[in-house]
Amino acid sequence: MLDREYDTQVCSIARSLEVVGERWSILILRDLGLGLRRFDDIQKDLGITRSVLTKRLRSLEEEGVITKNLYNEKPPRYEYRMTDKGRDLWPVLVHLMKWGDKYYLDPAGRPTIMQHRDCGGEPDLHLNCDKCGQPLERSDVRAIPGPARRAIPA
Amino acid sequence: MLDREYDTQVCSIARSLEVVGERWSILILRDLGLGLRRFDDIQKDLGITRSVLTKRLRSLEEEGVITKNLYNEKPPRYEYRMTDKGRDLWPVLVHLMKWGDKYYLDPAGRPTIMQHRDCGGEPDLHLNCDKCGQPLERSDVRAIPGPARRAIPA
Repeated sequence: MLDREYDTQVCSIARSLEVVGERWSILILRDLGLGLRRFDDIQKDLGITRSVLTKRLRSLEEEGVITKNLYNEKPPRYEYRMTDKGRDLWPVLVHLMKWGDKYYLDPAGRPTIMQHRDCGGEPDLHLNCDKCGQPLERSDVRAIPGPARRAIPA
Repeated sequence: MLDREYDTQVCSIARSLEVVGERWSILILRDLGLGLRRFDDIQKDLGITRSVLTKRLRSLEEEGVITKNLYNEKPPRYEYRMTDKGRDLWPVLVHLMKWGDKYYLDPAGRPTIMQHRDCGGEPDLHLNCDKCGQPLERSDVRAIPGPARRAIPA
């Protein structure tokens, strides 16, 4: 367990927060979900220090939420991927995103849109496609940039 | 916005975390969802300092996630309740709980069980009742103590 800050709490929500509630951890998982794999790419995307990112990645790896794999031997370079345990956090991320979209919408629109690959619909509150009605799993959905993200100068 | 730690991030997940990602905030919302209303009850349940709880409650109130209402004039006493905006975080809490139940299950069993009031089933990954199939809303469900919580000496 990463952090026993919540150890007075007999609660599965508290236990989950001990693993993913640390600042930046959820956003690291979001980045992996968006297809980022490499330390430098994640670090650049989040704009955090290398030491903070190293610490968070190590914690998530220790908890089995992500894996670290050597993809280049000389010099040694690693890539990070979510495990099934990490991917199981998908509904948490979707609902945090939907809540943010509802209450903190940027004037430029949504930053990211989750889209059903088959029909272009979006996951509703029951993670069913709002267009074709199919119950969605994580692999049925892709993230595409929304208007707020496209508005950022490259 | 409570905290601009994530202000480099154009992302609805990051915006949500600025509001509810602060340590203890989600557990305060959990307590309100379980029916706790009063400062002393929440403070006792969480085991945190009065100053931390005061700060978190004020932040959540400023963001419109909870309301603070006078229920006794002399001495002044307040109760806290979730707003509709706070209640809209229900799916995030359910999925954090399900993930913790799956991966960090206490040997004594689950601490809390979310139960469909009508039939005693539980919300599945699509927030449908796993017994009768009904799509569940927050008001359809109640939280009851599970084996791990019942095992705690009072």
